[in-house]
Amino acid sequence: MSTPAEADEFHVYDTTLRDGAQQEGLALSVADKIAIAQHLDDLGVGFIEGGWPGAVPKDTEFFSRARTELHLRHATFAAFGATCKPGSVAADDAQVAALRESGASVVTLVAKSHDAHVERALRTTLDENLRMVGETVRHLRSSGQRVFLDTEHFFDGYRANRAYALEVVRVAAEAGADVVALCDTNGGTLPRELQDIVRDVLESTGARLGIHAHNDGGCAVANSIAAVEAGCTHVQGTINGYGERTGNADLLAVVANLELKRGMQLLPPGRLAESYRIAHAIAEVTNVPPSNRQPYVGVSAFAHKAGLHASAIKVDPDLYQHTDPALVGNDMRMLVSEMAGRASVELKGRELGFDLGNDRELVSRVTDRVKEMESRGYTFEAADASFELLLTEEVAGARPSFFDVESWRVITESRAEGEAVSEATVKLVAGGDREIVTGEGNGPVNALDHALRSAIERAYPVVNKFDLRDYKVRILDQGHGTDAVIRVLIETADGEGSWVTVGVGHNIVEASWEALVDGVTFGLLRHKEDVR
Amino acid sequence: MSTPAEADEFHVYDTTLRDGAQQEGLALSVADKIAIAQHLDDLGVGFIEGGWPGAVPKDTEFFSRARTELHLRHATFAAFGATCKPGSVAADDAQVAALRESGASVVTLVAKSHDAHVERALRTTLDENLRMVGETVRHLRSSGQRVFLDTEHFFDGYRANRAYALEVVRVAAEAGADVVALCDTNGGTLPRELQDIVRDVLESTGARLGIHAHNDGGCAVANSIAAVEAGCTHVQGTINGYGERTGNADLLAVVANLELKRGMQLLPPGRLAESYRIAHAIAEVTNVPPSNRQPYVGVSAFAHKAGLHASAIKVDPDLYQHTDPALVGNDMRMLVSEMAGRASVELKGRELGFDLGNDRELVSRVTDRVKEMESRGYTFEAADASFELLLTEEVAGARPSFFDVESWRVITESRAEGEAVSEATVKLVAGGDREIVTGEGNGPVNALDHALRSAIERAYPVVNKFDLRDYKVRILDQGHGTDAVIRVLIETADGEGSWVTVGVGHNIVEASWEALVDGVTFGLLRHKEDVR
Repeated sequence: MSTPAEADEFHVYDTTLRDGAQQEGLALSVADKIAIAQHLDDLGVGFIEGGWPGAVPKDTEFFSRARTELHLRHATFAAFGATCKPGSVAADDAQVAALRESGASVVTLVAKSHDAHVERALRTTLDENLRMVGETVRHLRSSGQRVFLDTEHFFDGYRANRAYALEVVRVAAEAGADVVALCDTNGGTLPRELQDIVRDVLESTGARLGIHAHNDGGCAVANSIAAVEAGCTHVQGTINGYGERTGNADLLAVVANLELKRGMQLLPPGRLAESYRIAHAIAEVTNVPPSNRQPYVGVSAFAHKAGLHASAIKVDPDLYQHTDPALVGNDMRMLVSEMAGRASVELKGRELGFDLGNDRELVSRVTDRVKEMESRGYTFEAADASFELLLTEEVAGARPSFFDVESWRVITESRAEGEAVSEATVKLVAGGDREIVTGEGNGPVNALDHALRSAIERAYPVVNKFDLRDYKVRILDQGHGTDAVIRVLIETADGEGSWVTVGVGHNIVEASWEALVDGVTFGLLRHKEDVR
Repeated sequence: MSTPAEADEFHVYDTTLRDGAQQEGLALSVADKIAIAQHLDDLGVGFIEGGWPGAVPKDTEFFSRARTELHLRHATFAAFGATCKPGSVAADDAQVAALRESGASVVTLVAKSHDAHVERALRTTLDENLRMVGETVRHLRSSGQRVFLDTEHFFDGYRANRAYALEVVRVAAEAGADVVALCDTNGGTLPRELQDIVRDVLESTGARLGIHAHNDGGCAVANSIAAVEAGCTHVQGTINGYGERTGNADLLAVVANLELKRGMQLLPPGRLAESYRIAHAIAEVTNVPPSNRQPYVGVSAFAHKAGLHASAIKVDPDLYQHTDPALVGNDMRMLVSEMAGRASVELKGRELGFDLGNDRELVSRVTDRVKEMESRGYTFEAADASFELLLTEEVAGARPSFFDVESWRVITESRAEGEAVSEATVKLVAGGDREIVTGEGNGPVNALDHALRSAIERAYPVVNKFDLRDYKVRILDQGHGTDAVIRVLIETADGEGSWVTVGVGHNIVEASWEALVDGVTFGLLRHKEDVR
């Protein structure tokens, strides 16, 4: 049985590589784009808009390399570009030629559909714009490519001059465009109005319609769904909602909503469950920290502060979640939070692979210890690794330890010129040897991190794989100035995964040291086989 | 003319302090909650849900302190709590008594409206739940409080057992609840279905309805708007969309959409333009890094990668933005320049008593400098004192200075027993004398603060009145580990008032030093008369 995508009934069209890359601070190399395209194909989208060959040199290179380096199983590449210029002949237009010769079997042409944009930005007449649209579509169709048309600023244009906006859609469809995607380019249209407009366009033109929504009003996902309900059979969006300003429609949220809440089948069977993995893998490539609160795929999307509901959640999790997180590859997580109770400690333990259910005394001991530590400022909500070290200690009777710290010191001083410098000295015994190591850094914790890892690398070379990836500081009892309790969270990674540890104290350097030592210890525990 | 809020026609109901605080990793002290409540009142929301007095000790303290410490101009406090327990009498229920005695003139009661939750989580009968709702509402009404009812899991409940869900609404309204807020607690309902359900509830019960949406499907803003379109006149949400899992409806986006796209007047006149400032000020309190892509108030929300459109945007910006960013206090940005615009610099200057309106060249110079500093990580949102020092410097030609620092150094080291200790040495010239002073502290910044103030107290005894009251650290480019840019905010007080200064750098100690020096300098400026 063919999927709707195979049967061309519904298009999941990804524009992460083109419109997503417009995001402030996001810059993709050709290698990045190839890595992302591979992930998108794994996800099973129907179309991957690769960029604008001919206009952007990196995109020209991408299309040429993609032809040999990528073997897509699901997706078809689309080349993005513009119609021919005012006054030019489509067949002679260099930019159109680059699209024709890109090797992409689909070309997505952007065209103006808002009268003011035609006259003031494009500086041509409304009729000439229609000629450009019709002629470019016909030319590319005659060269054997499928053509989709993106109507820029469509909804604003419709409000300003409905007849003209509709005419652009009609001209494109009559010239052979398979899909006319209505773009809410400025992103401020609200769902009800957008749905009414889509219905009118569909009735007035009969064209096959798509939707391309931006999130300026916070409604991009809802707008995409509203458009599909009104009859669009082609949805554009980006992974993690990347895009200019507030971003594009978050494609995974749109697809998950349509599959899980509307019963549509848009991706190949089983692919939706790859959402979590692929969203995070793509975030690794873009180097944009993923939002924990992102619908469906955020780390917190199915996380519950247990509290009062813990026991009810344990009995019947479906009462407390809108969908089964496994369907998008995510997981329910119980947060060991303030007011931690036995139930949440048990649940958390199970999540980490410890079955505590039969040892009531152990659960009580862990619960009491978590409560006591939380009252001093610790939090285990984010610091899974510290919680696991604590559990291991209570289960095994001793805390895992790979080295004995004798002392540490860090000096930070101003320099006559330029930035201050920090220098740390760590004395410890690791693998039977006493080590005294000094490390520099551009801050006290950076220096301590360098010194600590240098001091144990002879005994445990695997620490060279560890990378201190994120460092967070929270002043707890604000209002106490620098005498407050400080909580530090450190995320350490080893190329395969990452883990978070916590340290607490009045002294920020000491709290950081505690989290650093736990971070390294947990990492060594993960690599037990490399640690003799 | 009264606003809809004053006329009680429409409720903008904020639950940042209660439901927002359920967000993973977010922990608010009582002082944090008071600071946020003040911002919410400045914004002009109608209701501030302060927490659950009686159940959460911190919330009990918040309501008691709020009564004396806060003087609200716009908002009314609401205390959140549950109906009486199964089998108990509302008038005798301790938890209900805490709500009655909270001092809040509004109580928002949460009640179950989903049959499965009543039976499996609450473990009582459907009839008993109705009795609890009716009796608790009547009891609180008879004690003189307004009552709103939050119907937990309403939309899931409606799908499971429409008749029962409607009955809960009817019972609450008949017992005297002013508003019944329909809660999409699990957050997975999509706008069209939600709108149909709201319409049905309104027709079937005639109750005044509110909406409480979560963002699990990425549609919380759209759902809130859909509910208002269907007749809800009470909208709940949180600033920056804080909340458990994927968060609650982003209240500012909902309000901005309804005011700017639907022509409703929800906040007091002129208050919407405070959105940007207040969203960021609250993010400083919560210490949750704001999303650049947040609708309306994100730093990137009106930022354009200029490129091809640059000149067209300059000629006619309205073609490229869905609304005027000034209406929400934001700014269009074209280049890499940061958030500050001329208008906000002028406004801020006026706020501090500098009339810059007539000196266009000065305003440009200050704006450029602020933009440049903000691009390096500074923020003047909260750091009024640092901004005033900068302004004074640009107006007077030189930065106010009371001492010349030669060098500083701070050492932190572990001790064999107990906590680490920090020791700072500062060398400077103050009042003509060279001072070399060493101070101890329980952290590097605490030690530096002691050493700095000791070093200048002979020249400026007034510094003994100064008290470093609050210290905040924010890691800016998260994902860079300890090599990130760090921003420090320090609040200094002198018994009459307090002021905030900012420091930025890769080295946390150096950034803190910068903010410390500015803090002391600004304090000496405030006490010019004592400083010969």
